Amino acid sequence: MNTAELVELGQQLRVDSVRASDAAGSGHPTSSMSAADLMAVLLAHHFRYDVDRPAHPGNDRFVLSKGHASPLLYSAFKAVGLVEDAELLTFRALGSALEGHPTPRRLPWVETATGSLGQGLPVGVGIALAGKRLDRAGYRVWVLCGDSELAEGSVWEAAEHASYEHLDNLTAIVDVNRLGQRGTTRHGHDLDAYARRFQAFGWHTVEIDGHDVDAIDRALGQARSTAGQPTAILARTLKGKGVASVQDREGLHGKPLKNAEEAVAELGGRREARIRPQEPPAVRMLHAVPAGESEPPEFGLGETIATRDAYGRALAALGSARGDIVALDGEVGDSTRAELFAKEHPDRYFECYIAEQQMVAAAVGLATRGWVPYAATFAAFLTRAHDFVRMASISGTGINLVGSHAGVAIGQDGPSQMGLEDLAMMRAVYGSTVLYPCDANQTARLVATMAGLDGIRYLRTTRGASPVIYGPDEEFPVGGSKVLRSSGQDRMTLVAAGVTVHEALAAADALEREGIRARVIDLYSVKPVDRTVLRRAAEETGCLITVEDHHEEGGLGDAVLDAFLDGRPVPRLRRLAVRTMPGSASPEEQLHAAGIDAVSIAAAGRLLLTEA
Amino acid sequence: MNTAELVELGQQLRVDSVRASDAAGSGHPTSSMSAADLMAVLLAHHFRYDVDRPAHPGNDRFVLSKGHASPLLYSAFKAVGLVEDAELLTFRALGSALEGHPTPRRLPWVETATGSLGQGLPVGVGIALAGKRLDRAGYRVWVLCGDSELAEGSVWEAAEHASYEHLDNLTAIVDVNRLGQRGTTRHGHDLDAYARRFQAFGWHTVEIDGHDVDAIDRALGQARSTAGQPTAILARTLKGKGVASVQDREGLHGKPLKNAEEAVAELGGRREARIRPQEPPAVRMLHAVPAGESEPPEFGLGETIATRDAYGRALAALGSARGDIVALDGEVGDSTRAELFAKEHPDRYFECYIAEQQMVAAAVGLATRGWVPYAATFAAFLTRAHDFVRMASISGTGINLVGSHAGVAIGQDGPSQMGLEDLAMMRAVYGSTVLYPCDANQTARLVATMAGLDGIRYLRTTRGASPVIYGPDEEFPVGGSKVLRSSGQDRMTLVAAGVTVHEALAAADALEREGIRARVIDLYSVKPVDRTVLRRAAEETGCLITVEDHHEEGGLGDAVLDAFLDGRPVPRLRRLAVRTMPGSASPEEQLHAAGIDAVSIAAAGRLLLTEA
Repeated sequence: MNTAELVELGQQLRVDSVRASDAAGSGHPTSSMSAADLMAVLLAHHFRYDVDRPAHPGNDRFVLSKGHASPLLYSAFKAVGLVEDAELLTFRALGSALEGHPTPRRLPWVETATGSLGQGLPVGVGIALAGKRLDRAGYRVWVLCGDSELAEGSVWEAAEHASYEHLDNLTAIVDVNRLGQRGTTRHGHDLDAYARRFQAFGWHTVEIDGHDVDAIDRALGQARSTAGQPTAILARTLKGKGVASVQDREGLHGKPLKNAEEAVAELGGRREARIRPQEPPAVRMLHAVPAGESEPPEFGLGETIATRDAYGRALAALGSARGDIVALDGEVGDSTRAELFAKEHPDRYFECYIAEQQMVAAAVGLATRGWVPYAATFAAFLTRAHDFVRMASISGTGINLVGSHAGVAIGQDGPSQMGLEDLAMMRAVYGSTVLYPCDANQTARLVATMAGLDGIRYLRTTRGASPVIYGPDEEFPVGGSKVLRSSGQDRMTLVAAGVTVHEALAAADALEREGIRARVIDLYSVKPVDRTVLRRAAEETGCLITVEDHHEEGGLGDAVLDAFLDGRPVPRLRRLAVRTMPGSASPEEQLHAAGIDAVSIAAAGRLLLTEA
Repeated sequence: MNTAELVELGQQLRVDSVRASDAAGSGHPTSSMSAADLMAVLLAHHFRYDVDRPAHPGNDRFVLSKGHASPLLYSAFKAVGLVEDAELLTFRALGSALEGHPTPRRLPWVETATGSLGQGLPVGVGIALAGKRLDRAGYRVWVLCGDSELAEGSVWEAAEHASYEHLDNLTAIVDVNRLGQRGTTRHGHDLDAYARRFQAFGWHTVEIDGHDVDAIDRALGQARSTAGQPTAILARTLKGKGVASVQDREGLHGKPLKNAEEAVAELGGRREARIRPQEPPAVRMLHAVPAGESEPPEFGLGETIATRDAYGRALAALGSARGDIVALDGEVGDSTRAELFAKEHPDRYFECYIAEQQMVAAAVGLATRGWVPYAATFAAFLTRAHDFVRMASISGTGINLVGSHAGVAIGQDGPSQMGLEDLAMMRAVYGSTVLYPCDANQTARLVATMAGLDGIRYLRTTRGASPVIYGPDEEFPVGGSKVLRSSGQDRMTLVAAGVTVHEALAAADALEREGIRARVIDLYSVKPVDRTVLRRAAEETGCLITVEDHHEEGGLGDAVLDAFLDGRPVPRLRRLAVRTMPGSASPEEQLHAAGIDAVSIAAAGRLLLTEA
């Protein structure tokens, strides 16, 4: 395309952005208009993509980090023939695939859900990592960012990660339109301010007028030819560019234009140009080939071993059996035991340093390319990445997250290192699976099982060693549970998971010595829960005592309730959980202080009977 | 102190760090030893602090961002006479105030809990903001950072915030010991790499040998005399400095020295020097004076107004009544309505741009200086700051968080903007209060009430307008509820909050037309819940239907259970919540699709009766 044609294409994208937002009665046309020329030149000259085959392994990848500019994205989809005009005008309507912010659940051309700012670039880094280190397919990753979102720290985690990994297949195109939602950004049109930051983080930078299509073309070309480092194109643009009544004006964020018809006329009227991006090169996918044969590790009954150790060993074995397994860790691989995978599969291990948001984002990016990521850090520090987990669930991306050092059972390090909110966080994520094993064989099985599930899969592991209570051939289906003690005389049921399973067993033994029989359920599948077994226990024993190394809200105790929400009578319930703020102490002292050790459980059981 | 004395003091801090960790049998002596000289010179020559009056308004503030180096901090406490040697040796023991990672709950000299890396500097920015813009007391804020934690994006949110606000009263001292937990950092001893980044973000930087006490002295002096921008001192250090067997070696993070006695000997033996920091200047606190008289806004019955609007108006009025109220917002003040406060009290408003972690950290920092912060953004984006909220709860800091645009009720913008996990997140925070008003007068009351509570207070607001159903004089105690419909013939209870209160009322009306009476409870206090009213409703009506604009896990439905965990019989329960992944649609369509509108509630009520 020549200059005039590129200018025309930019205007077409603006017109369609205005029209789509007008049809919806909401949306962000002005944020789309600032980036329209950037998008036009990218599509026409630099983006290699087989429109008919979104899954083509050689396709370039595009991420709209400023997800609110969805009208621009959908207008671009129309320009390449993926969307018809009639569908474009369903923007934001009930049932339309063209949502207010793009998600891949219904649009195969969208790599990842955006709309929470500062996440597109981090995920783009993950995709570029896959391209560079795993797929080696030569595709490029283009991320269109807003300027406002550069205030998010996650962008700088991404910047650091990308330059450290020499991701020259990654380009950030920053639409510096100087206006945020409620006013100007910190740096306005000071492109140098952004360039200095990206350069300091090891990026190549180019500063351009974002409405000069020839300058854009040269900058994108420069990004493609820059070796050894990622490129950031800092483009000076005007919000609402092309329509005088809204151009470069404050107070118009997220609002359709007042008079769309006039605006379209001012932009030169409707155009219906169709363009075809360049074809991607033919490539083969590497990870389709399994790595080899390998059995999961087996642990002997009675052996004592921490579930985090079992995680590391199981993951290393899974990596041997399957070539598509990759692991990430937040600079605590010696604690989470991800280092065991790293040692055996260094090519598929990604050290993310202390940047949990970027770790989860990289996992999401890797997953978009078909890899099966396991990302681990302390359970407590996964809270750092909560918004990324939330957005991954909106994407429908399948990732495995592993939180080690759960609960007060870690001991002396104190509350800052204790995951006591992670079950609540992970359970509330849409479509998630939450697993919490109590022994090494169970852990090993669940690690392998997780790989095949949809959505966010969370595994909670424990720092300290615990006895192996299951044989290596025992099965642990998701949504199941294990009844570890049961008799016709059970007068209560102890429901536990992870570290508290062992405490509950000891409590049941103590109670039995007093003639009180208690059923014990290992609820390793915290979400979904085993409704059948819980309901039977309620019917047969009358009351349930849940015991968890977690705050009392949102964890195991609340999960059990899920079995009793169909209007049936609910059993008597008592919940033992961490209700105080722990300090430092030994693991045993911590469990006792929190009232979730065997002694406390037995006491609660006796008390419940006196109240019956 | 002369050079030799400073060197001696550094050695004393090392010796005591080794001894404390040895007594505990755990801890991080090597991470303490690298920073010992930095700490010694700071304490002896630059830190102004009245040891007997930790609350002295003129005191300098110190934040140990690398919280695992707590042995160093406690050794410093000993050197200034705050801790005796016997107490030092209780490090990490049950009941000791000297926890594995420092918290202010039991140590008045600690400003904020640390131990989750990358949080100390962000909170330090908040304290420095208070010093610069509010207290104007001339104190300085010194933050000792690790090099590993500079990978956290939150550090760069803080860097941006600090330079933008010209916080020349803030100094980051970075202990660049090149070793993280499991190996080397990305940049090793490349001080320039860090300096480039801080400079790009607008900081003054100084690079020094972190074991040259004279160089440290000059650098700290330079930090004090640098005007208009914060200073980062990048200090090249050796982990485990001073003991050959551990110095600059990998694999020794978080481990006591094998032979403490030998190490102490190698460090020159025990010393018991006592030093006295310089006195702070006399200052007066400004915010002790209330701003004036102002009544909370009042809204007329039947008027329709969004609770987010009521938040903005109530906060602006509270700011007029009380001089200690401050507000922060994440560049969405036009949405959260924090802009109403900004307009009336620009001197006490802090625009944090799109950096939610830094926003919460700044709120924590401001709170440490006695200010009462209200920090607002979309409820969905508070998930970004989850780890900061968690750490604030460990600190015991009192902050108010406000999440707007809760739930599917926002409509067209789609799931990325919908807070559907926020109740679960906030409920699971230790000691939190969770409030969710349904009308404007209730919001206004709760906004004022929040200010006086302990810990994390969360208010959830709604985007769309709703009718005012309470008079302006109605009281809304925390832990209370409002019974909006009640009769002797109630066959069920609808428990709702926020937007679903209005749907529940409409459902009750519909059911009543069919001869079915339903009680309606407005559970505006989601944590703590009104156990008395819920129990009475259970007894009198037999079953409860909870209705919430939130995912089904961890929210209102689970909260209600809290009333029935004392072993008493639990009523029949049914939970209506958001169980699907929403797309774009109008607010009404969203509520219907999620099954939480009046029609769906009435249908659930009928169904429950057929099952009874």
